[in-house]
Amino acid sequence: MNADQLTVLIIKYLKENKKGALEKVIDELQPYDIAQLYQNLPGKHHFKFLLYLSPQQIADLIQELDSDLQIEILHRLGIEKSSKVMDLMENDDLADLLSELSVEKIQEYLAAMKSEDSTYVQNLMTYSPETAGGLMTNQFVWIKNDYTVRDAVDKLKSFAEMNHTIYYLYVINDNKELVGVVSYRDMLLSNIDEKISDIMFNRVISVPVDLDQEEVAQLIQRYDFVAVPVVDEKNKLLGIVTVDDVIDVVIQEANEDIEKLSASGKDIDFNTKATTASFRRLPWLILLLFIGLISGSIISGFEDTLEQVVALVFFMPMIAGMTGNTGTQSLAVVVRGLISHDLDRKTVVKLVTRELGVGLIIGITCGALIAIIAYVWLGPIYSLIVGGSLILTLIIGTMAGTIIPLLLYRFNIDPAVASGPLITTLNDIFSLIVYFSFATAFLSYL
Amino acid sequence: MNADQLTVLIIKYLKENKKGALEKVIDELQPYDIAQLYQNLPGKHHFKFLLYLSPQQIADLIQELDSDLQIEILHRLGIEKSSKVMDLMENDDLADLLSELSVEKIQEYLAAMKSEDSTYVQNLMTYSPETAGGLMTNQFVWIKNDYTVRDAVDKLKSFAEMNHTIYYLYVINDNKELVGVVSYRDMLLSNIDEKISDIMFNRVISVPVDLDQEEVAQLIQRYDFVAVPVVDEKNKLLGIVTVDDVIDVVIQEANEDIEKLSASGKDIDFNTKATTASFRRLPWLILLLFIGLISGSIISGFEDTLEQVVALVFFMPMIAGMTGNTGTQSLAVVVRGLISHDLDRKTVVKLVTRELGVGLIIGITCGALIAIIAYVWLGPIYSLIVGGSLILTLIIGTMAGTIIPLLLYRFNIDPAVASGPLITTLNDIFSLIVYFSFATAFLSYL
Repeated sequence: MNADQLTVLIIKYLKENKKGALEKVIDELQPYDIAQLYQNLPGKHHFKFLLYLSPQQIADLIQELDSDLQIEILHRLGIEKSSKVMDLMENDDLADLLSELSVEKIQEYLAAMKSEDSTYVQNLMTYSPETAGGLMTNQFVWIKNDYTVRDAVDKLKSFAEMNHTIYYLYVINDNKELVGVVSYRDMLLSNIDEKISDIMFNRVISVPVDLDQEEVAQLIQRYDFVAVPVVDEKNKLLGIVTVDDVIDVVIQEANEDIEKLSASGKDIDFNTKATTASFRRLPWLILLLFIGLISGSIISGFEDTLEQVVALVFFMPMIAGMTGNTGTQSLAVVVRGLISHDLDRKTVVKLVTRELGVGLIIGITCGALIAIIAYVWLGPIYSLIVGGSLILTLIIGTMAGTIIPLLLYRFNIDPAVASGPLITTLNDIFSLIVYFSFATAFLSYL
Repeated sequence: MNADQLTVLIIKYLKENKKGALEKVIDELQPYDIAQLYQNLPGKHHFKFLLYLSPQQIADLIQELDSDLQIEILHRLGIEKSSKVMDLMENDDLADLLSELSVEKIQEYLAAMKSEDSTYVQNLMTYSPETAGGLMTNQFVWIKNDYTVRDAVDKLKSFAEMNHTIYYLYVINDNKELVGVVSYRDMLLSNIDEKISDIMFNRVISVPVDLDQEEVAQLIQRYDFVAVPVVDEKNKLLGIVTVDDVIDVVIQEANEDIEKLSASGKDIDFNTKATTASFRRLPWLILLLFIGLISGSIISGFEDTLEQVVALVFFMPMIAGMTGNTGTQSLAVVVRGLISHDLDRKTVVKLVTRELGVGLIIGITCGALIAIIAYVWLGPIYSLIVGGSLILTLIIGTMAGTIIPLLLYRFNIDPAVASGPLITTLNDIFSLIVYFSFATAFLSYL
C-alpha cells in the first residue's frame, strides 16, 4: 500500500467511524509514517484523526512535525489533553516546541504537566538550543553503583514504557556523579547477582552541558556512539544526547553551509512560500546589487581607456567570471573543512600555502591558454594584457576565497557574511581593477 | 593530557621499550584517538608502535585511517599478521580496503584469512559501494525463531568478542528468512525460558541489498533506528547497516552537494596536495573559461551599440552578477531539497511555480530599485533599459537555477554538471543578451 492508497483508506475509515479498523492500521505504522499520513489528510479530518490516536501516538506524531503543525495540534487538543501528550514527549523536543509559544501559554501547559517533567523541561529551556543542553533528553535510566544486575533489571522494568531507543544504563554514585556506563549486552552476559560496579565501563566519555552541538556531533561520529551522557561542571548527570538527534544536527549544519555558500537564505525548503523565500533572499541580493554598482563605477574610472579600445570589453565577463569561480571553489573547501578541523596556526599556514600553490598552478595554466587565444585573435599586446591579468586575478581570487572566511571565522564573525555570491562580487571588483590597470598601462601600444 | 603530550609520552615509551606502560595508555583510548596518535607519530616509530598493539587494536586503528595509510600498515605487517587483523575488521570496511589493492594482492590476503570471513568479504565486494550491500557488515548475531531467551543469551556469549555496537538480535526461520528482531532490552525484561517468537517484534523493517545508500540513510534517519537489516530478494538476511555508517553517508552526500555547487572537485580537504587540488579543479575552470569567451563574443555582436554608448558597460557587471546570484540561490534550494523529496509531478510543478513567484518578486523589487537609481543618475531611457532588463534577467536566472538541475536529475544525468559556476556562467550569457537587446532597441533614444 503506498502513501496515497493509505490516505484514501484512512479517510474512508474516518467517514465511516471505523475506529477499530483505523487503529489496527495505525498500530502497524512508524511515527514518521503517521506524520506523513497526517500531513496528507485534508485539514477537516485532522481533529477526528487525533481523537482516534492514543496520547503516546500523538506524542510520537507531534515530534515528527514542523512547529506550526505542532502548535495547531496543541490548540485542537486543549490544555488538558495536550499536557498528557507533553508528559509523553521527549523532553528535548518538548522544550523546542514550547520555545515557540508565548510566555503565558508555556506557563499554562507546564502547570498542567506532571511536576517532575515540567521542572526538567523548564531547565532544558534555559540551555541554548545549539548546545549539548539544548539537544539532550531525560529519557534515560540511571542506576547506583552499588546495585546488582538484578536491581538494575528491576529498575528497568519500572521504566518499561519508556522509549525503546535506549541502549545503556548510566551509573552514578551517592553524589549523583557519573561514574560509569553499562550496556544491556553486558548485563545479559553477566550473572544476575553480579555487582554493577564490577561489570560497568568506568572510563565513560561525557560532554559538558554547554558544548556546541557541532562538537557533540563530531564526538559521537568519531567514536561511533549511539548516545553520550551530558554532565554539569561537577560531573553530575543531566541527560543524554542520542545519535538520531546528531544526524539531524549533521544535516542542519550541512544545510547551513550551503545556505552560506549560496546566500540562499535560512530554512528554505520545497514547502516555503514564494513571499517568504523572496524576503529571505532579498536582503542579500540588494546588498549585492549595490556592490555590483561599485564594479560599474570602477569601469567608469577607466572610461578613457574603454572609449579608445572597446574590444577590451570582450574579455571582461570571462576574467570577472573566472575570478569568481576560483574564489567559490576555495571558499567551499574552507567552509567544509572547518567542520572537521581545528584552526590552529599550523593548519592555517598549511591551507593558505596550499591554496596559493593552487592559485599559481591554475593561474598559469588558464593564463597561458587565454594568452595563446588572444595572441592568435588580436595580437601580442592583447595576449599580454589578458593573459597577465588572468594569472594575477586567479591568484587573487583563490586567496580571497581562502583568507576571507578564515579571517571571519578567526574573529568569530558570523561566517554567513562570507557567502559565495559576496566573494564572487568582491572578486569581480578585484579582477576589473587589475584588468583595466593592465590595459591602461599598455594603452599606448594598442 | 592533550594530543601533543600523549605523542611525546608514547615516543618516550617506544624509545625505552616500555611495552607494559605503553599498553596501559593505549587501553584507555578509543580507536579514533589511537588513529590520531598513529598519525602524529613520526613515520620511523610506526612499525614498533604496531608491534605493541594487539590484532584487535590494529583492526580498530586501521578502520579509522585513510586508504593509503591502511595499505602502508598491511605492507608493514606482512600477509600472515595482516590476515589476522583482517579477520577482526568490520567486513564492510575490509571490502572497501581490499578494493584499493591489486587483484593478486586481494587473492593473497583472502587466501590467508578464515574461509568464512573471506567468502563474505568477496561477496561484499560484488555490491556497488554506494548501496546497502556496500555499506553492510556481517557483525551481527542471528537466532532462530524457536530459540528461548536462554538459547539466545548462550549464542550471544559465544560471540562475546564481537563488536560492542550491536543492540539487536535478528530472528530467522528455517529458510533463513528474516522474520523478526529482538532487542537486548526486551530479552532483559523477559523470563529466561520465554520463546523468542513470543517477544520478538515481527513487523521488522529491512532494506533490499541494492538500495541506494542515500535512501538507506533516509530510512534510518526517519525512523530513528540504530541499525537496519539488509535482505536479498527472497528476504534472506545478508547483513546489517549501522547508524555510524549512515552518519558518514550523510556527511559524504552533503560534501558532494557542496562540491557540485562550487565545482570545487571531488574529495579535496585540508590535506590534499596543491597539485592534486589544482588538477581536480582545472577541467571545470577551462570549460568555464571557454563559456566565458562566449559572453565576450555576444558582446562583440553588439559592438555598434557599445561604441555609441560606452556608459552601458557600467551596469554590465551588476546585471550579470545579479542573474548569477539568483541562479545560485535557486540551485542550492533544489539540490538540497532533492535529498528529502521524491520528484513527482506535483512536487516539480509546485517548486517551479514557487520559484517563478520568487523570480517575479525579486525581479520587480531589484528592478524598481535600479530603475530609480538609473533615472536619477542618467535619465528615463537608461532607467527603462537597466530596470527592464534586470527584471527579465532575474526571472530567467531563477528559472535556470531551478529547471536545469531538475531536468538533469530527471534524465539521470550526473547533477554535478549543474554546478553553481556553470549556472552562473550560463546566466552571464542570458543576461548579456537581454541587456544588450534592450539597449539596442532603445538606441535611437539614447
